[in-house]
Amino acid sequence: MTMIEGLNIEYVHVKGNTFEAKMNLNAFHGQIVGMLNGGATVAFGEITAGMASNQLIDENHIAVGQTIIANHLKGKKNEGYIKAYGELLHKGRTTHVWSIRMIDDKACLICQMSVTNGIIMKKKDGQE
Amino acid sequence: MTMIEGLNIEYVHVKGNTFEAKMNLNAFHGQIVGMLNGGATVAFGEITAGMASNQLIDENHIAVGQTIIANHLKGKKNEGYIKAYGELLHKGRTTHVWSIRMIDDKACLICQMSVTNGIIMKKKDGQE
Amino acid sequence: MTMIEGLNIEYVHVKGNTFEAKMNLNAFHGQIVGMLNGGATVAFGEITAGMASNQLIDENHIAVGQTIIANHLKGKKNEGYIKAYGELLHKGRTTHVWSIRMIDDKACLICQMSVTNGIIMKKKDGQE
Amino acid sequence: MTMIEGLNIEYVHVKGNTFEAKMNLNAFHGQIVGMLNGGATVAFGEITAGMASNQLIDENHIAVGQTIIANHLKGKKNEGYIKAYGELLHKGRTTHVWSIRMIDDKACLICQMSVTNGIIMKKKDGQE
Repeated sequence: MTMIEGLNIEYVHVKGNTFEAKMNLNAFHGQIVGMLNGGATVAFGEITAGMASNQLIDENHIAVGQTIIANHLKGKKNEGYIKAYGELLHKGRTTHVWSIRMIDDKACLICQMSVTNGIIMKKKDGQE
Repeated sequence: MTMIEGLNIEYVHVKGNTFEAKMNLNAFHGQIVGMLNGGATVAFGEITAGMASNQLIDENHIAVGQTIIANHLKGKKNEGYIKAYGELLHKGRTTHVWSIRMIDDKACLICQMSVTNGIIMKKKDGQE
Repeated sequence: MTMIEGLNIEYVHVKGNTFEAKMNLNAFHGQIVGMLNGGATVAFGEITAGMASNQLIDENHIAVGQTIIANHLKGKKNEGYIKAYGELLHKGRTTHVWSIRMIDDKACLICQMSVTNGIIMKKKDGQE
Repeated sequence: MTMIEGLNIEYVHVKGNTFEAKMNLNAFHGQIVGMLNGGATVAFGEITAGMASNQLIDENHIAVGQTIIANHLKGKKNEGYIKAYGELLHKGRTTHVWSIRMIDDKACLICQMSVTNGIIMKKKDGQE
């Protein structure tokens, strides 16, 4: 199993300059104390923002995560789900800037993220 | 398998106000294109900074990730390992601020992170 | 003249968990090329978020800037004004987390900021 | 007086992939409580990182601040000076990533910054 598979992302829907994604929580996402592992939340944001950027660019380019920022706002028990609501604040030729709100199944804002993706030509091994 | 298990962190050594940690890469960390998934790198940093903070506080308190910042600097093929070198820039009563450098098996700096942990009383469900 | 005076902030209105502030631009805010100096935008956000937090806590405490994050999204000619719209994402006992949008006089989003203020007892010289 | 003049930056020396800069504090940098205004520190970092990037690129390009991150680590009385020590972590074609340590006249680390500059063609009005 890869980490992306384990994260159990149900969908990523891109609509205009926004996206919505859903991650269903299970044992994979937990910590010893029964709480959601914050690292899973951040990975969810980074990965879905990358998927969303890739749907907004042509086939010769690829989005790579450049700057990832997360403010964890509230702990969450490791059950239920999280939805990510992304808004593309900047759609440049070389960078996309996403603002993402993570809302849990109790409608609670648990995390605010900002993800800057670099938009690079394909075939390059990595960033820039 | 949990995400923390899957990340395959070999060790986290805390020494004074620094830590060193190692993550051995395997299929879990990969993306379709054969590259390391940046989300795995960030999760590695957040989780090990939390472990390190927990070793530096008393048993009535626990460290929770508050602000996570990652600058991905270079792509990496999904093979070999990454080492994280953390430096505790601020050791306050209510927050720890870590600066972390991620170096790969080719001695290349692939990611610079900053992790602020909130230090809270145990038994509270989550942050603050 | 102090920097805060030079920034020429017309007002900071706090309403519930939000604030609105306005900064009128003049020669002080400029760079050689006739553009707004990004440093002025960031200082505007950090300072007004501090003022807003101070209005939301009791007199024995004071807010100090802890983590400041700014994504500059668009350049702006150094004329007219900027408004800051702050939203308090987290109001904890020891930290406030603000998300702030900077909108210029053409209704353009020029900068997205996140400001985490530490809330500390007065009489302490600085942070924590 | 412009903000850049008021900041009273004595020098910015670029050497290889590092820079050192010095800001001498006076009434301009203060807050009511006699402390250094954190916004001045952040502006100092953003402006000097931009100057340093401009010395590392050709004349057809210009550096514009893209992502500014500051962790304030310790309060400082508004007297003496601050030195900024920048290290260029990534020197790409379209972005520069600087890590900057702000050290005061008592050799105390007061702020850790990360500044990502976009490198763009001149004559464009602003970022990207």
